[in-house]
Amino acid sequence: MKKITSLGYDVVFEDDLNELQSFLIDHDYSQLLILVDRNTNDHCLPVLQASIPDILDYDIIEVDPGEENKNIDFCIGVWKTMLDFGADRKALMLNLGGGVVTDMGGFAAATYKRGIDFINVPTTLLSQVDASVGGKTGIDLDNVKNIIGTFTQPQAVFISTVFLKTLDDRQIRSGFAEIIKHGLIQDKDLYNKCRSLTLPVVPNEIVYESVQIKNKVITEDPTEKGLRKILNFGHTIGHAIEGYSLVNDQSPLLHGEAIAIGMICEAYLSHRVNNLDDTELEDIVQYLKAVYPAYSIDPSIYPVLVDLMRNDKKNENNQLGFALLRSIGDCDYNKYVDEDLIIESLDYYRNLTK
Amino acid sequence: MKKITSLGYDVVFEDDLNELQSFLIDHDYSQLLILVDRNTNDHCLPVLQASIPDILDYDIIEVDPGEENKNIDFCIGVWKTMLDFGADRKALMLNLGGGVVTDMGGFAAATYKRGIDFINVPTTLLSQVDASVGGKTGIDLDNVKNIIGTFTQPQAVFISTVFLKTLDDRQIRSGFAEIIKHGLIQDKDLYNKCRSLTLPVVPNEIVYESVQIKNKVITEDPTEKGLRKILNFGHTIGHAIEGYSLVNDQSPLLHGEAIAIGMICEAYLSHRVNNLDDTELEDIVQYLKAVYPAYSIDPSIYPVLVDLMRNDKKNENNQLGFALLRSIGDCDYNKYVDEDLIIESLDYYRNLTK
Repeated sequence: MKKITSLGYDVVFEDDLNELQSFLIDHDYSQLLILVDRNTNDHCLPVLQASIPDILDYDIIEVDPGEENKNIDFCIGVWKTMLDFGADRKALMLNLGGGVVTDMGGFAAATYKRGIDFINVPTTLLSQVDASVGGKTGIDLDNVKNIIGTFTQPQAVFISTVFLKTLDDRQIRSGFAEIIKHGLIQDKDLYNKCRSLTLPVVPNEIVYESVQIKNKVITEDPTEKGLRKILNFGHTIGHAIEGYSLVNDQSPLLHGEAIAIGMICEAYLSHRVNNLDDTELEDIVQYLKAVYPAYSIDPSIYPVLVDLMRNDKKNENNQLGFALLRSIGDCDYNKYVDEDLIIESLDYYRNLTK
Repeated sequence: MKKITSLGYDVVFEDDLNELQSFLIDHDYSQLLILVDRNTNDHCLPVLQASIPDILDYDIIEVDPGEENKNIDFCIGVWKTMLDFGADRKALMLNLGGGVVTDMGGFAAATYKRGIDFINVPTTLLSQVDASVGGKTGIDLDNVKNIIGTFTQPQAVFISTVFLKTLDDRQIRSGFAEIIKHGLIQDKDLYNKCRSLTLPVVPNEIVYESVQIKNKVITEDPTEKGLRKILNFGHTIGHAIEGYSLVNDQSPLLHGEAIAIGMICEAYLSHRVNNLDDTELEDIVQYLKAVYPAYSIDPSIYPVLVDLMRNDKKNENNQLGFALLRSIGDCDYNKYVDEDLIIESLDYYRNLTK
């Protein structure tokens, strides 16, 4: 068992759920509300239930899985169910699931009766490495991602390898994109370790190192005034592609798949305007191409993508700000890039995948 | 011009809007969003607009007036409009209106892009004395009042007498009930000053003293664990009567009118179970009778009123907890009263108004 201390709470890494059980025994909550989606209800809840102390009453709230359901309508449903269950201010919300469940459950808890406690038990690789630290809660509105939310820290996060066994190869690869990103922006060693792995096996040590990097960044800049923006590498373009795919594709891209595309485009931008050298660009691009499937982007949708980028909540004064690599393991932020160059980077990706 | 420092921000009292103007000039906000309702759009916005520095772009967001519109649907409308206006994280929300506008606007700002700054410019006497300190933001859900919200402090609050001129006598008297309450629970001098006033003129000095009292209480107990409960004097019974009237009367009672009835009943309870003496009870009752119109309560609705009191979200373990006076200027909280005695207090009010 290992721990990382984040902003006032612990992120616990374990191979079972013993620490989670101790937490529930040690705290005096009036009741427990467990938020799940259909998948975690079937595959993860049975594992969790064995760890809930007998003394604690609990109720289950289920939402539909998938980013397209991380919206205000489902959130209203969660709030109403909390009311129906008579949850008072001393209730604890336990979010059991991927980023959709932890983001929405965190937001519902942070705003119910002006805030009740919550803990996160992320069950996907993506949510373990991405949503476990940082205190971001949120939901989408009109397909704009996480546009409504708060910065609210959970009481604790429990990362257990028992849940990774429930994931398929595609989900593992999606989460792995964020680990690659953490290597690219802060730690060349981690990037090289990623490169030498044979997926879909991801050792707990790599998850731990990845969360450590993210935690270091967000504790230095909890509310994203500066440094924390480097975590957006690959996300300005990646989020736009993800948003487009969600609405237009029958089988939409997973988050990490879209971010992998975003990282290719933004590595290209890093090369063009931030001195990332040829060799490193080539290394990154070939690696990401090998791990993630090609996605077809027609030039006719470029304006839609650029509009989606402009709506990104990270922009200020209508300028498109990017996190761009200087080299592998070193990243700058607040790099403003003209629309022409963004188009050029999308063309670069298109040509790679032709 | 006077100032009160609340939880990390200033409440400014002025007869014009000079300090508000200085605030807008001194801060480097990217844009200004002004939330109004139809009434403040017509009567208060023109006054405000003259004070907005030329350098600052602003957009207007309008919601329908009235507590029945302080709900998630209108809030979604506000969020979407913020998005349409391209509001970024350096935008400032200015809530211009009564409690509905400041509560909902505060919540929308606290959750938009994980929180942007907001300032409140309360335009009713009620919101000036009641909603200007405390940091409560919120909306109603399924007619449960303020069930979704946050504790988030504004950057500043500007209380100007210029807006009181837009109110009619009835609205002034409604807001004035909260001032009388602040005197009754904490400050006999303020109560006596109230008694010597000729309404509807309310000097800024009285508003200032009233906010000072509330601020003292809430800074001692920001999250309502104890002392802050004395602010509920008159509200347990008053809220029930207000809720009943909203649904059943063609021209429902205003908040303060209902609270005045609640204060008479709860002064009676204070006399019966908390040693409030005859003379003071008589003094309070005669004064409130003189300021507020009589309201007819038929004994057949007593059970409905008691049910409404039981549903109040401040109750714990199904017991009816009251804030009760010991004497004028001195109040206790967590006083539990049997249903028979509550009925007796309603009969007391009925006999007064026969």
